[in-house]
Amino acid sequence: MEAVLQRLQWLEDRIALQDLIIEYCAQIDRSNVEGVLGCFVEDGVLDLTGLGLPRLQGRTEIRDFFSSVFATMAYNGHYSSNFKLDALNGDRASAHAYVHAVGKSTEGGDVLVYAKHEFDAVRTEDGWKIAEFREPFLVPSGEEIPEF
Amino acid sequence: MEAVLQRLQWLEDRIALQDLIIEYCAQIDRSNVEGVLGCFVEDGVLDLTGLGLPRLQGRTEIRDFFSSVFATMAYNGHYSSNFKLDALNGDRASAHAYVHAVGKSTEGGDVLVYAKHEFDAVRTEDGWKIAEFREPFLVPSGEEIPEF
Amino acid sequence: MEAVLQRLQWLEDRIALQDLIIEYCAQIDRSNVEGVLGCFVEDGVLDLTGLGLPRLQGRTEIRDFFSSVFATMAYNGHYSSNFKLDALNGDRASAHAYVHAVGKSTEGGDVLVYAKHEFDAVRTEDGWKIAEFREPFLVPSGEEIPEF
Repeated sequence: MEAVLQRLQWLEDRIALQDLIIEYCAQIDRSNVEGVLGCFVEDGVLDLTGLGLPRLQGRTEIRDFFSSVFATMAYNGHYSSNFKLDALNGDRASAHAYVHAVGKSTEGGDVLVYAKHEFDAVRTEDGWKIAEFREPFLVPSGEEIPEF
Repeated sequence: MEAVLQRLQWLEDRIALQDLIIEYCAQIDRSNVEGVLGCFVEDGVLDLTGLGLPRLQGRTEIRDFFSSVFATMAYNGHYSSNFKLDALNGDRASAHAYVHAVGKSTEGGDVLVYAKHEFDAVRTEDGWKIAEFREPFLVPSGEEIPEF
Repeated sequence: MEAVLQRLQWLEDRIALQDLIIEYCAQIDRSNVEGVLGCFVEDGVLDLTGLGLPRLQGRTEIRDFFSSVFATMAYNGHYSSNFKLDALNGDRASAHAYVHAVGKSTEGGDVLVYAKHEFDAVRTEDGWKIAEFREPFLVPSGEEIPEF
């Protein structure tokens, strides 16, 4: 029975980690700053240097960044696919997914990004949370990402 | 053991509900009207008002609508991602996904839609079926959806 | 308990088969020829006739093909979604997914393909491997696929 419980736990953790990255996308796409922050641990890191954007640490920096993004973007759609669980050891995990991000700025310009979402997560009392998040390009789209 | 069976059932139901939305996409993409209808309960609702299209109730209305769509569209591809199980209580469930829909009309025009698939489902003797389906825009694409 | 173990095995196999197709995409997107080969059994078939490309059998033919692809393409992104397990019987399975492939050739040209990934797989000592892989178009994109 112990082995059965471990296998069940693995399946549930895998789904929870996939749900975490989808929740991160959903909160951005709803322009919900507090919802985005709720995906991270208190001192979580959001490293966007792969896109030529800043590396942010902690809720204040991440909040300020997304407040600026949501003021600039009228619509965001982060299509997440190709989820892969890279490591799962007790309360720590690493995973990644592909993201196909489409958006429209308030000025009417289109945004198109083909990138990866790579993240390290930790299990907390409120479920899995992002400890560090990185977003390298998968295919450079040749379009400009607005400065936020 | 009762708890183990419940956890297994939850995992299987989650996958079945994700399969249901993917089956709906697959049947549209095969231009199979009866296959689309098979995803719905008898008096199911397909509410496309979020796209500026009609709200359809029951097999006759849904059949007529897709017969018209398949006469107009030469190819459809409904890429479904970001599945999220929103609620699961016994024989009722609510879930949603993102859809990136590409298509080509018989006249050669391209269709591109960034939307959400939101649905309520019920467990039947033939598995989970859609009771009500809604499709709001995620990112307006600026392209026209043909009138069907 | 026997029934519980069978249900667990089904869930794990389903995830492993989905992981296999995502791994195939990931290895292409890393331009890793040996990684792509590792997804196939020794005499595996890669049938690309659906795209107007060759049918390849065995590691030598598949290696030569991808060596040519990776010399021509600067970037590849194979977005895999709509996974469906079509059949699972013991050590044999069939499944398919949709692929939205974007890429950039070394000459700067863009590649865009809307297709399906259909595959038969077998369970080996090293996990599930592709025995035969087919890639029919889902929506013809009207763009040329480079000759490799």
